[in-house]
Amino acid sequence: MSEMLPQGSVVGILGGGQLGRMLSVAAARLGYRTHIFEPAANPPAADVAHAVTTAPYEDKAALAAFADGTHVITYEFENIPTAALDLLESRRPIRPGRRALAISQDRILEKDFLTGLGLNCAHYAAVNSAADLDSALTRIGTPSILKTTRLGYDGKGQARLTTPADAPAALAAMQGAPAVLEGFVNFTREISVIAARSASGEVAAYDPGENVHKAGILHTTTVPARLTAAERSDAVLIAARVLNALDYVGVLGVELFVTPDGLLVNEIAPRVHNSGHWTQNGCAIDQFEQHIRAVARWPLGDGSRHADVEMLNLIGDDILRVPEFARQKDTAIHLYGKAEARPGRKMGHVNRILRKG
Amino acid sequence: MSEMLPQGSVVGILGGGQLGRMLSVAAARLGYRTHIFEPAANPPAADVAHAVTTAPYEDKAALAAFADGTHVITYEFENIPTAALDLLESRRPIRPGRRALAISQDRILEKDFLTGLGLNCAHYAAVNSAADLDSALTRIGTPSILKTTRLGYDGKGQARLTTPADAPAALAAMQGAPAVLEGFVNFTREISVIAARSASGEVAAYDPGENVHKAGILHTTTVPARLTAAERSDAVLIAARVLNALDYVGVLGVELFVTPDGLLVNEIAPRVHNSGHWTQNGCAIDQFEQHIRAVARWPLGDGSRHADVEMLNLIGDDILRVPEFARQKDTAIHLYGKAEARPGRKMGHVNRILRKG
Repeated sequence: MSEMLPQGSVVGILGGGQLGRMLSVAAARLGYRTHIFEPAANPPAADVAHAVTTAPYEDKAALAAFADGTHVITYEFENIPTAALDLLESRRPIRPGRRALAISQDRILEKDFLTGLGLNCAHYAAVNSAADLDSALTRIGTPSILKTTRLGYDGKGQARLTTPADAPAALAAMQGAPAVLEGFVNFTREISVIAARSASGEVAAYDPGENVHKAGILHTTTVPARLTAAERSDAVLIAARVLNALDYVGVLGVELFVTPDGLLVNEIAPRVHNSGHWTQNGCAIDQFEQHIRAVARWPLGDGSRHADVEMLNLIGDDILRVPEFARQKDTAIHLYGKAEARPGRKMGHVNRILRKG
Repeated sequence: MSEMLPQGSVVGILGGGQLGRMLSVAAARLGYRTHIFEPAANPPAADVAHAVTTAPYEDKAALAAFADGTHVITYEFENIPTAALDLLESRRPIRPGRRALAISQDRILEKDFLTGLGLNCAHYAAVNSAADLDSALTRIGTPSILKTTRLGYDGKGQARLTTPADAPAALAAMQGAPAVLEGFVNFTREISVIAARSASGEVAAYDPGENVHKAGILHTTTVPARLTAAERSDAVLIAARVLNALDYVGVLGVELFVTPDGLLVNEIAPRVHNSGHWTQNGCAIDQFEQHIRAVARWPLGDGSRHADVEMLNLIGDDILRVPEFARQKDTAIHLYGKAEARPGRKMGHVNRILRKG
């Protein structure tokens, strides 16, 4: 394997939200400085970064100066404009690479990629018109869900169809954007695997977590997930297959549905993932450091789990519960330093250690 | 108890070394911004701080501006000039308070304070002249050790006396500074207790660690320390007595000698302590967060130990061993981002998890 990135090198991070913030802390722990690129002013990551560039992704001069001040670039979210990536990639290595980004930016590319690997997804069909939606409904039926192919997250850009009569309203909700109809999956639970691949091709996965959503936003992740031994190993092998197929370097999140017929892949995220925050208090090496290790060409760290953990997101006014959590045993609080607690905004999370050892 | 410091408040930290760096990360985790005051350029803490002031402690304008930009001030080392503290304290609360600083800055004040609490220390006597040293040697004898009363750390400003004939050389080594002669302690091991006291007077202590020094610098701390149950509770009670006597708010390190006749207090440090770094990988809430919790008027966190840990300091060229440690299981690496690896310089540390649960 190539040389580890020298001490004192600068890791560029695209995106200055809470994921960038926690990546920045992990990079510092390994002796690196971080430079955050973020269009919004005063991003959460700025509090723990060596340098911050505040500029839009269309500002080529800012992007070039940012790239030139870094030794390697990574990102905390997948919706980075292609032109910005082209410019950055011409100057510095970007890890994970472009292919993972391109695939995860587009639900249809993603599903084609996953099914091409022999993995199971919900039935799906591209929808660009009323005629497309009619024919997709004939094949997939209801209940089903229509989603924009790009830029969806936390339940945004989605419309549920209970009967075919819901089609016009669902299509209107897409506001003309390309969409995909997905068959409803009758799952018993939703899990995710946070897995990593190093620059030398070494793969490691954290124990799968079980996710509960509320109003389309992750509410809790609990480890261990309630899985059979076969499901557990299937989940980890699916993540490994995705990582290897993408020649991936870094941490990847894979969301899976557990069904009576086996595991279906819901989606992949080419980055550290909210459902992996429990690793901060359940493992010697958490997902943020694991990602930086991969990006900086270190060997992967030991991600074995030493505790049962429940991660609870603090959304909006949940931040008011911090004094209550601060008094509780076996409870670690992680706040993002966001000034304003808007509804639906992720303000922090709490890792509750349920059982040690 | 008073209100917890509001989210987004600024915690000022005097000193930008590795302790300030790790305090800064802990403050961010609790939703605070940090402002570092440090005379040296590019201090390790700057990589993870919201703001940095580079100025000497004699720069009153810089101190005032720093204080005015913070909501509360703490420190990572005890040798802050009194005039600077006077100025800062007139503008913002300093936690822990002045008395702890004053005592720990002066070995004689410290020993007088400790023995005044009924705690045992090595025999000691103030030495300001050859005559003082003669009479101290008559009472305390050799082997013994002469130390400057102020500004000593990591074995600096110390001279060992094997026989009374060593007196002139030892006194010369003090370079005219006030000194204290300490009787040699025939200890079986050295331990330390990292303990905390909250603004409401709540006290908590981490499990004592066993320390091994090399060339006057901490080499390893291992938990649990090899102690009897009585020694363990004595150690914790000593720390609690010191905390309460000082009306202390924050984390304090107490170094103790284990002798056949019981525990002797070696010294106290009114700050997070190198021998408490193991808490980062052995406890849900580490010493850095515990300190920030106290300073920010939070309840103390859960510091119960979930693993046996050995902390190994990386001194000077030990940094070259990072690739070796990076490959090891159960091993967490913490680097300080220092550019130059000088002999005796603390570059980072490694927490090895010896046994979980």
